[in-house]
This record gives sequence, C-alpha cells and structure tokens, in this order.
Amino acid sequence: MQVRIKPPYLLFLGDEPDVSHAKTAAGIAHWRPENCLGQLRMPGCGVDLGFPDMTPAEAAEAGAKTLIWGVAGVGGVIPEQWIPCLFDAVEAGLDVVAGTHSSLYDVPGLADAAKGAGVSLIDIRRPPAVPVGTGAKRRGLRVLMAGTDCVVGKKFSALAIAKEMQERGLKADFRATGQTGIMIAGGGMPIDAVVSDFVTGAAEALSPDNDDDHWDVIEGQGSLFHPGYSAVTLGLLHGSQPDAFVVCHDPGRKEIECFPGFPVPSISELIDLTVANGKLTNAAIRCVGISVNTSHMPEDERAHYLAETGERHGLPCVDPVATGPGPIVDHIVELYHGDAS
Amino acid sequence: MQVRIKPPYLLFLGDEPDVSHAKTAAGIAHWRPENCLGQLRMPGCGVDLGFPDMTPAEAAEAGAKTLIWGVAGVGGVIPEQWIPCLFDAVEAGLDVVAGTHSSLYDVPGLADAAKGAGVSLIDIRRPPAVPVGTGAKRRGLRVLMAGTDCVVGKKFSALAIAKEMQERGLKADFRATGQTGIMIAGGGMPIDAVVSDFVTGAAEALSPDNDDDHWDVIEGQGSLFHPGYSAVTLGLLHGSQPDAFVVCHDPGRKEIECFPGFPVPSISELIDLTVANGKLTNAAIRCVGISVNTSHMPEDERAHYLAETGERHGLPCVDPVATGPGPIVDHIVELYHGDAS
Repeated sequence: MQVRIKPPYLLFLGDEPDVSHAKTAAGIAHWRPENCLGQLRMPGCGVDLGFPDMTPAEAAEAGAKTLIWGVAGVGGVIPEQWIPCLFDAVEAGLDVVAGTHSSLYDVPGLADAAKGAGVSLIDIRRPPAVPVGTGAKRRGLRVLMAGTDCVVGKKFSALAIAKEMQERGLKADFRATGQTGIMIAGGGMPIDAVVSDFVTGAAEALSPDNDDDHWDVIEGQGSLFHPGYSAVTLGLLHGSQPDAFVVCHDPGRKEIECFPGFPVPSISELIDLTVANGKLTNAAIRCVGISVNTSHMPEDERAHYLAETGERHGLPCVDPVATGPGPIVDHIVELYHGDAS
Repeated sequence: MQVRIKPPYLLFLGDEPDVSHAKTAAGIAHWRPENCLGQLRMPGCGVDLGFPDMTPAEAAEAGAKTLIWGVAGVGGVIPEQWIPCLFDAVEAGLDVVAGTHSSLYDVPGLADAAKGAGVSLIDIRRPPAVPVGTGAKRRGLRVLMAGTDCVVGKKFSALAIAKEMQERGLKADFRATGQTGIMIAGGGMPIDAVVSDFVTGAAEALSPDNDDDHWDVIEGQGSLFHPGYSAVTLGLLHGSQPDAFVVCHDPGRKEIECFPGFPVPSISELIDLTVANGKLTNAAIRCVGISVNTSHMPEDERAHYLAETGERHGLPCVDPVATGPGPIVDHIVELYHGDAS
C-alpha cells in the first residue's frame, strides 16, 4: 500500500541553470548514488551531478527502469519544451516518476503512450488507497523526526540516522513521507496528500510489522506547533506509534516560516506536546535526541550551542551535517539494544 | 467556500422499513422543520416524518428547491430501485443532495440530466477547494464540541446550544462538520473528507470573520484520543481557534468505539490535552461545560452524576436531551457577555 519506484534511475535535469532547482535529483544523487545510472540534460542545463549523460533509449539499454523527474519547474507545472523527453522515456520502456503539481496524466497522450509501452506513470503526490488507522500495535522499533517547524532538517536527519544505523550493522530503513524523500527512498507515503480521515492509516501502512530489532526511521512532516499543517503531523505521530522521536530544530528561526505571529516553540515545549499526544498509541514514547541546523553559526558558537543544548535537556544534540548523527545513534543503541550492539 | 444547500426540501425516505435507516431525514425534520416541505415515500416505506407526501413534481410546484437523500442505503450505495426518483427530481427542477459513499456523478446519465435541467448534484462528502490554514485571528466568538470519542453527542450538543443561544437573543450559528449536520444546517464543511494539508484551512473557512458578539457553535469530529481520526480533530481545533469548548462524553463507554484496547479518556484528560493543543491558535481557550449522554441511567442516578461531575470540574454539566443545555449557555453568557445579556 505504498508508492514504489523501480531503480536504477535516469535523472532528468531539464535545462535548469543551477542546482537549486534540481534539489530532488541532487538529493537522490547524494543519498542513493547506487540507484542512479545516468543523467539527462538538455541544452542550457547548468547542473551536473556527475553521472554519464544518456538519452532515455541509452539508459534503458544500460538497464535503467525509471526516469525521475528531478526538477521543480516553475509553479510545479511541466514546461512544454520538456514534454518530448517524457514521450522518449515512455517509448524507451522507462516508468516515469514526477512530483509536480500538474499530473503526468494531464499531459495529452502520455497516459496512452505509457499504456501502449507497458510502463507506469507515477505521480508521487497521489497517495495510494489506505484504510482508516487501527492503532493496533505493530512489531519492530520506530523513531520519528518531530520538527519545531517545517524545513528544519527532518528529512536530512532521518536519512543520516538511518545511514548511520545501517553502517553500524543495525537493521534500519528510512521511511519517506514527502515527495523528495519518496524519490530518494524509492517508496513511501505522500502523507500530506492523504484525505484526513485516513492519515493515521497511511502512517500505519508506511511502517508495517517488522523484526523486533528493526528500526523504521521516519521522516516527519510539519509540526504540532504549525497553524497550517498540524493535522498531518498528529496523524503521522499516532500512526507511526514511535518508540522514540528526535527533535529537529533551527535555532535561527524565531517564527514559523511564512506564519508571522506564531513563535517557533522551544525544544522542551515540543518534547512535552509530542509525548502528551504520542502516548496514545505508544505509552513508552520518549525523546532520544536533538538534531539542529547550525549552518548559520561560526564553528566555536556551534560547539558551544550543541553542548549547552544537549546538557540542558539531558539528550544528545547534534548537527547532522556538521557533526553527524552519531551521538543520537549511540543513545538509541544504549537505550534499546543494551550491550548486545 | 462551504457546501451550500437551498431550502425548502423534499425529504426522500425511499422504502426504508424504519426510522433507524432514515436518521439524516429525521434529524433535518427535528432541527429544521421549517426547511421541510414534504416527504417522498416509496411502496413499503415504514417511516413517516409527518410531512405531506409529494412527488418531485408536486414538491417543485409547491416551491421546493432540493431533494434531500435522507436515507443510508446498504453500504452507502444507491439502490437500483431508487434511481428513477433521482431522475424525476432533476427533471422537476430540484437540486439533489446526497451523502452516500457512491457519488451521484456515478449514476449513469444523471449528471447530464442535471446539466440539461440546470440543477445541481451535490455530494456532501466532496469538500469544496480550500486554501492551507493561516492561523490568522478572525473576529467573533467560537465554541467547539470536543469529544472523548466519536458518537458521544457532539452534533446534538452543538445544535442544542446554538438553538438555546438563538432563543435567548444571542447571535449564534450552528456550524456543521459532518454529513448529517451539513444537511440540517443547509451548509458546512465535510471536514473528514478534506486532504490533510488543508484540514485547518477548511475549518477556518467554516467559521469566517463575524460580529464581535457572534457565536459559531461548531460540531466536533472524532477525538484527540481517537487512534484513527485524531488528525481530523486537531485540524478542526486549530482552524476553529475556539474561545471555548464543551466536552462531550458518554460515561457508559469504557473503550473507544470499535477500537478495543484504547480507553475513553477522563473528562480532565480531554480538557488538558485540548487546551495544550488548542492554545496554539487561541491562547485564551477554555472549557465552558460538559455535555453528557446519560440515556442509560435511571433518573436519580442521572441527577447525581451530573451534579457530581459538574462540581468535580467546576463546570456546568448537562445532558442535552434530558436537561437541555441551559446551564452551559448561562456560563457562556456570564463569561463572555457580562451583565449585558
């Protein structure tokens, strides 16, 4: 019941002048280079992710299964000049995956061409059908990213923690809840596109029963303190029934982004409200670490901030980019795996 | 940006043997008899709501604007034998309103017939397009029903409080968030059918800016303690930005209905979690009363339960059916309207 994407990929970069408009493709290249076979660049493209340039036909010949639409496009629409590439991909036998606002099914003739070629068009923003959440306890361990706001590094933190766990030999999977995360993971659940009655059920489907010592590292969405998106956050919290959560925070942010008048909560406030709500589906829920974006701080200030914040809350506090998530994974191992790990 | 239904109505009762399958029509007849012109019963129908029997043509002639599909139907589908009545209604110039799972638009030919006749097919379960919530403060006063579970009398409590307010000369409107409530009110927002990213925005659209002394009495949905529907509840809470809330509770219920293992919270637990979450969009949020379903209690036990529960929480405690909501409205007047009312 999740979205699924078949690797390896041909990354479509269009004619984007710089990488800021190709963040999705760059994210896939960074976190899953092993899933990337080539890149498709049009004249004028200023982005180079370091993969061989290929046409759809060349990529298919080399074994690619999917063209990933890794660029934003203005307003989320698919520009006219890029449409022939979609047909080339379909005709070469590649699935096409996109997360644009306008659907692949709205491109005249593309759905028929895909059907004729026996390939799939996958709109990442269209959620699969899911049942209402049940609250039934599932096997396995789960750690959810909980943000003090949107865009505070929840996806990056989850990816970094999952990678660190895997490198230490722990069983772990990154579970994506947003568009870019889904493209990186090759699957997941576009949780904010799910009808509200089914959000908890969608979160349950995202992290199904697993081995008792397996971790689902779940990308968070929104914030319990977000006046626009809190419902998504609570459904994800209840459906994930996390054993543990990591607070993701940007200390440079004073107000919720684009919502003036709504202060970013303190780390303690977020911990308290997450536990107060989260204990409904997991009585043992606890905070296991703090993941902070300190990119705007000088080196010495960063070290002091991380140490002081960690001490104040009695939790490991990291910047997942600058210091890596190691101390959080140490703490998780200590709490949940005893001496065995 | 809300669903709107044009009165007066012809209530379609089909061939339902008893009123338990015609709850929606019965609810409209009870709360809004002034909006009901007639009833349409087919052979074998065992329900009589006391209105004149009319065909769609007769109802239209008498001034009816809308046929209300006031029956459940098995599994929410529209039975074959009732379909000719839908065409009769459309041809007579009536809008058709239904809340069935299967859409009116799925009845072959009906949409074209409606278009030809210049009338509307209104699926109550299809929400109108709404923007993301903003959290911006709106004028007017709002009181939201907050349930310890689903089906504990939130709709009834809201309707009773709004009616009592109106009878006392206060400015008040019932704001519907569910299918039956929308049909009773003639408008509203099917909040549980809204995509999760937009739930808060839908709740905002439901109770727009109003006079400073005007009350929106808002039907609640789900419960913050409901493992399946909590996301809907939180979005509605944040978007409603209520000044006040009323706890709706059924003391005979020990576990969340259909969710064994999930205890119904205490009234105090619900008050605390509602305030903890609700203060994000209204720092002054407070509980103003408790509305209880005591239908299973003998008379003397009821009186004792209501008195004891009210005293324990320092709040008026009523059964909206047995005692009426008067004491809650008294308390609201005292708190928000001083001596002026």
